[in-house]
Amino acid sequence: MTRYDLSLIGFGGVNRALAELIAERGDALEAELGFALRVVAITDLRAGSLVRTDGIDLAPLLAVAPGELDLSVLPGGSRDPRNEWVVKEVPSDIVVEATFTNPEDGQPALSHVCWAIEAGKHVCTTNKGPVALHGPALRELAERHGVRLAFEGTVMSGTPVLRTAREMLGGLAVTGFEGILNGTSNHVLGRLESGLTFADAVAEAQSLGYAEADPTADVEGYDVQLKVMILAGEVLGTRLTRADVPCTGISSLTPEDVRRAAAEGLRWKLVGSARRRPDGTVEAKVAPVALPAEHPLAGVAGPTNALVLHTDLLGAITLGGPGAGRTETAYALLSDIIGIHAARSAALTGAGRG
Amino acid sequence: MTRYDLSLIGFGGVNRALAELIAERGDALEAELGFALRVVAITDLRAGSLVRTDGIDLAPLLAVAPGELDLSVLPGGSRDPRNEWVVKEVPSDIVVEATFTNPEDGQPALSHVCWAIEAGKHVCTTNKGPVALHGPALRELAERHGVRLAFEGTVMSGTPVLRTAREMLGGLAVTGFEGILNGTSNHVLGRLESGLTFADAVAEAQSLGYAEADPTADVEGYDVQLKVMILAGEVLGTRLTRADVPCTGISSLTPEDVRRAAAEGLRWKLVGSARRRPDGTVEAKVAPVALPAEHPLAGVAGPTNALVLHTDLLGAITLGGPGAGRTETAYALLSDIIGIHAARSAALTGAGRG
Repeated sequence: MTRYDLSLIGFGGVNRALAELIAERGDALEAELGFALRVVAITDLRAGSLVRTDGIDLAPLLAVAPGELDLSVLPGGSRDPRNEWVVKEVPSDIVVEATFTNPEDGQPALSHVCWAIEAGKHVCTTNKGPVALHGPALRELAERHGVRLAFEGTVMSGTPVLRTAREMLGGLAVTGFEGILNGTSNHVLGRLESGLTFADAVAEAQSLGYAEADPTADVEGYDVQLKVMILAGEVLGTRLTRADVPCTGISSLTPEDVRRAAAEGLRWKLVGSARRRPDGTVEAKVAPVALPAEHPLAGVAGPTNALVLHTDLLGAITLGGPGAGRTETAYALLSDIIGIHAARSAALTGAGRG
Repeated sequence: MTRYDLSLIGFGGVNRALAELIAERGDALEAELGFALRVVAITDLRAGSLVRTDGIDLAPLLAVAPGELDLSVLPGGSRDPRNEWVVKEVPSDIVVEATFTNPEDGQPALSHVCWAIEAGKHVCTTNKGPVALHGPALRELAERHGVRLAFEGTVMSGTPVLRTAREMLGGLAVTGFEGILNGTSNHVLGRLESGLTFADAVAEAQSLGYAEADPTADVEGYDVQLKVMILAGEVLGTRLTRADVPCTGISSLTPEDVRRAAAEGLRWKLVGSARRRPDGTVEAKVAPVALPAEHPLAGVAGPTNALVLHTDLLGAITLGGPGAGRTETAYALLSDIIGIHAARSAALTGAGRG
């Protein structure tokens, strides 16, 4: 039985949820998927780090409340996250990167991803920054080192949009896309329709756990901007910079705008979109759009996300699902690992062919 | 370069559209997909049949209007469709079955599929009957003969629902599904909302080419019933008979029902659904349902279809797209051929490994 040793970089909600999946369902997943998963390292800014090359027993760690976890008291533990050392030096097959990202330069996630690739390890990450800002360079680096870089969780959490676009649409041309790619802003727009003020709607989204303490990236569209850049690379094969994706958020809308539109059967949605122009270049943007009721995105409610892919042979294909959530994003990492396993199996059988 | 020789059984709208794709885009598809396609036989109830083991030149056939095509005047042609002989005896790699089906016994499509499998040929079909009524037996037969049976086009035409359910959701449990799986009835319901009578809405659907001359299977839900049976097999691993899927159509709804619901923010939709009960058995049905606006299927308009898959880790995943159309269904056949190629490539490299 194949086994993959994992280093979990960051032990916040997402990697903790992945650890829970492995601890609770590892045997069932092994039976279904044909490989076993073992965690050999965990690093975290607050909890410190833990390295056990013979495998970490996850259950006792998961029994401790997230804020109280102190890995330094355990054998193999340290108060220091030791991210660089763990990624580069601790033997593992896959580095699972779920820390945080600075949307200006993609750090520190970018370094974690590069170190892993250069150490010959596969990487999956939920961080948009490295992929949006440096996707083609990272892909090339991964190819040169013979490893896979996977990032399903960067767009619509575990909803399989990137894999569907890559693997399910052979023989089709995708000519563009439009998506509701941020659950917080979508929830806020829905609550404006119900009569809440902008501030109250944002506060509610925060209390429901959808919005960050600083909701700027959500409501001003910067989060969607990065996702449009990632999708443009994956779906249209185009590299876009942030300057290529003009971005208007929803804070410019008044509750009156939203209610008046709703009365006319229109729904304001924050839409990230891109389309290939006849000359082959790509036009992209993030902006609020008042959609007619029959538009496939008009009915997408609350924190749900959806992406419409425009294709030549099938017209519009829509994929909807959760846009966030710790378990949902942890599943994205699991689906990345499944993809790494499939590629590795194909390469192994291919290599054995000669 | 791998090449697949195809026998097209039935040369109505769908297989003709596939022939158009091959004639117009064959080289581009070959460059993208890594295999070439060549048609070596065509059979049709009205046009007769044509066999050219060195490859049929498609362009001249496609230049003739569908109703006027007479294959018997061509070298290798016959007035007789010769389906059985072509499927069994003419050398080909893949039999592409797009004739018609009797929903009671699945014939004549069922025989075409069985003959092909028993002759050691892969099959793709757009016919619901054989798969809905005899799916597990056909799958077993295909396995025994070492060939693939593919049928993406039986549900939502080329929208990749069956492949997504099979290949994109590893590690998840699908607990049920609900779908709008018939474009004609969905179009009719939308027009009832707009104030048309039932008869006028059906007549309009017929004039737009959505509805058959006899719309019974569409409006009474029998078409959706077969699709629910196919999906239950693929998504929930359960074999259902027609008796297991109680079926109510939309003819029982009055325009007043529909308009009154719309005034309350509800949308009547014909929903085909199935869910796994706690005891492991599956409950399925086809029935009109008044959906609240926030339901993922409420906004699915006109001839568009959509399927919601309920999963344990991701909650609801929705896939929407065309439910019918000749090019859209021809793409389903192409996607089946892509899947056959992928499986064959994996088997070849695997076999070469020893």
